[in-house]
Amino acid sequence: MSKLLQDAVNELSKLPGIGRRTALRLAMHLLRTDTDSVVQMTSAIERFRKGIRYCSQCNNISDTEICPICTDATRDRTTVCVVEQVADMLSIENTHQYRGLYHVLGGVISPMQGIAPSDLKIDLLTERIERGEIKEVIIAISTSVEGETTLFYIMNRLRRYPGLKVTAIARGIGFGDEIEYVDELTITHALMNRREIE
Amino acid sequence: MSKLLQDAVNELSKLPGIGRRTALRLAMHLLRTDTDSVVQMTSAIERFRKGIRYCSQCNNISDTEICPICTDATRDRTTVCVVEQVADMLSIENTHQYRGLYHVLGGVISPMQGIAPSDLKIDLLTERIERGEIKEVIIAISTSVEGETTLFYIMNRLRRYPGLKVTAIARGIGFGDEIEYVDELTITHALMNRREIE
Repeated sequence: MSKLLQDAVNELSKLPGIGRRTALRLAMHLLRTDTDSVVQMTSAIERFRKGIRYCSQCNNISDTEICPICTDATRDRTTVCVVEQVADMLSIENTHQYRGLYHVLGGVISPMQGIAPSDLKIDLLTERIERGEIKEVIIAISTSVEGETTLFYIMNRLRRYPGLKVTAIARGIGFGDEIEYVDELTITHALMNRREIE
Repeated sequence: MSKLLQDAVNELSKLPGIGRRTALRLAMHLLRTDTDSVVQMTSAIERFRKGIRYCSQCNNISDTEICPICTDATRDRTTVCVVEQVADMLSIENTHQYRGLYHVLGGVISPMQGIAPSDLKIDLLTERIERGEIKEVIIAISTSVEGETTLFYIMNRLRRYPGLKVTAIARGIGFGDEIEYVDELTITHALMNRREIE
């Protein structure tokens, strides 16, 4: 087999969710794509990897010292939504319903993976709070064991700020989810947090 | 959103089977990967795209004028297996059961996609046959309408070589396939080509 193909397949199959078969299919696709387009892709990846920075305020990825969300004057600077990772922030942004700021933790507390609270950007969050502008912190972390641990840890840390409102996003049954297949914990939460129909 | 991230996601989502969500997940993975490893990947892709050639004998992709299979002296040069694309050849190679040579057509006849017989490497195949060494041509093309058309077209073209044996790979029910779910045409073929149990 061609060494060039083998190298390309080896590298592509290091990507998550891409096995050797898919990597080969991708390589064959690249062979049918003109060279300029392939170079356009590889250079976009390199520029991204080499040029990306982290917002010094919210830890969002950014092309600049402070990210466009933190500098956006039209956004509500009194509300901060705490997320695990950039992808979560992008999902919330896609709803176009949230107009506050964000805070990207960069992970969740996980003794198994050796991630301690000090590895997350929690100090950066308390520094922001101490500057006094923030009135509400919304915690939007996934409901895994690690996520819940992180939620409780942060809630504990934020108790020292008496005027601060700390909320967590609602747990419940997602739109389109069939109750039959939803796990017990989610159903329990959904029942406890039931709302009167108006 | 970061322009650098946006560019990387745009480029990655041009790959087949990779939507924007997966592209974003890949980009986030690349951000956690060290820069050297990312550059190693992008340069392997570029070297592959720019450096790859097609074997002047069998049309297999190759790093050299003639591919390693065609130059391999231990292989049976009297048998040639005709495949649609390089990926099919690699699948057959993975069985380690076939020791002959190959011939990569580079597609199948498809009036819908504007692929005529002259777009495939059929002349290159007949030239090889006319050199006299080949005794058997095995046609290993998928059983689509286009595949069958191509099979019959090639069989027709090869009729002018009286000493040449032309065969097609067996159609039947695959290992692990449940007969209940196998299509009628395959079952019909499997019944017609039944073998006595020894």
